Amino acid sequence: MIQKVNLAEKFGLFRDYYSPRIVGDVNGMHVKLATIKGEFVWHHHENEDELFLVVKGSLLMRLRTGDITVNEGEFIVIPKGVEHNPCAAEECHVMLFEPAGTLNTGNVRGEKTVESPGRI
Amino acid sequence: MIQKVNLAEKFGLFRDYYSPRIVGDVNGMHVKLATIKGEFVWHHHENEDELFLVVKGSLLMRLRTGDITVNEGEFIVIPKGVEHNPCAAEECHVMLFEPAGTLNTGNVRGEKTVESPGRI
Repeated sequence: MIQKVNLAEKFGLFRDYYSPRIVGDVNGMHVKLATIKGEFVWHHHENEDELFLVVKGSLLMRLRTGDITVNEGEFIVIPKGVEHNPCAAEECHVMLFEPAGTLNTGNVRGEKTVESPGRI
Repeated sequence: MIQKVNLAEKFGLFRDYYSPRIVGDVNGMHVKLATIKGEFVWHHHENEDELFLVVKGSLLMRLRTGDITVNEGEFIVIPKGVEHNPCAAEECHVMLFEPAGTLNTGNVRGEKTVESPGRI
């Protein structure tokens, strides 16, 4: 059965930072939601481009070529192979589009790695 | 060079209804923006799932199983093969996420078909 997804309602279902939840499937891609705050980790994805759409707050996307602040109503696509570190001074809500199976920390496994994101 | 995309700014660049513009690429998928108002056409996509995220206004997604109103901050995924007709009583802004090459009218070619969406 086809159902719509309300972003605010879904963001109300979890509080932990940097732990993406799957909320949709589109041709082998996942739509994920993540709440972020603080510093993440520098990483890249070998084969996956990754889109970050800011739903609430501001995302500080750190890149080796310079930082880019992405505000509510803006998105940024990080192409495969490009090192990045998504940070936020204050709590920020982002919607992600990326291939199913994309690991949140890419090539860097560590304490912030989420092996199997939950579905909400 | 990696650049962010501001949705409101992009929507300010065109006024025609049901004529999607490409604003991003993610692993062979396109991010498109469309302004819609009125009645579109019933159609389906043979191989493509299609995500509609409402950025402004309300989308009336007509389905053979019943209509679903999708409001700002909500999205809906129409799986391949499912007939749908995206309508809007008042002007509505949607962000689409679908495989590159997806035809806006799917299996139904007609006056509303846009063969090659522009890139903005």
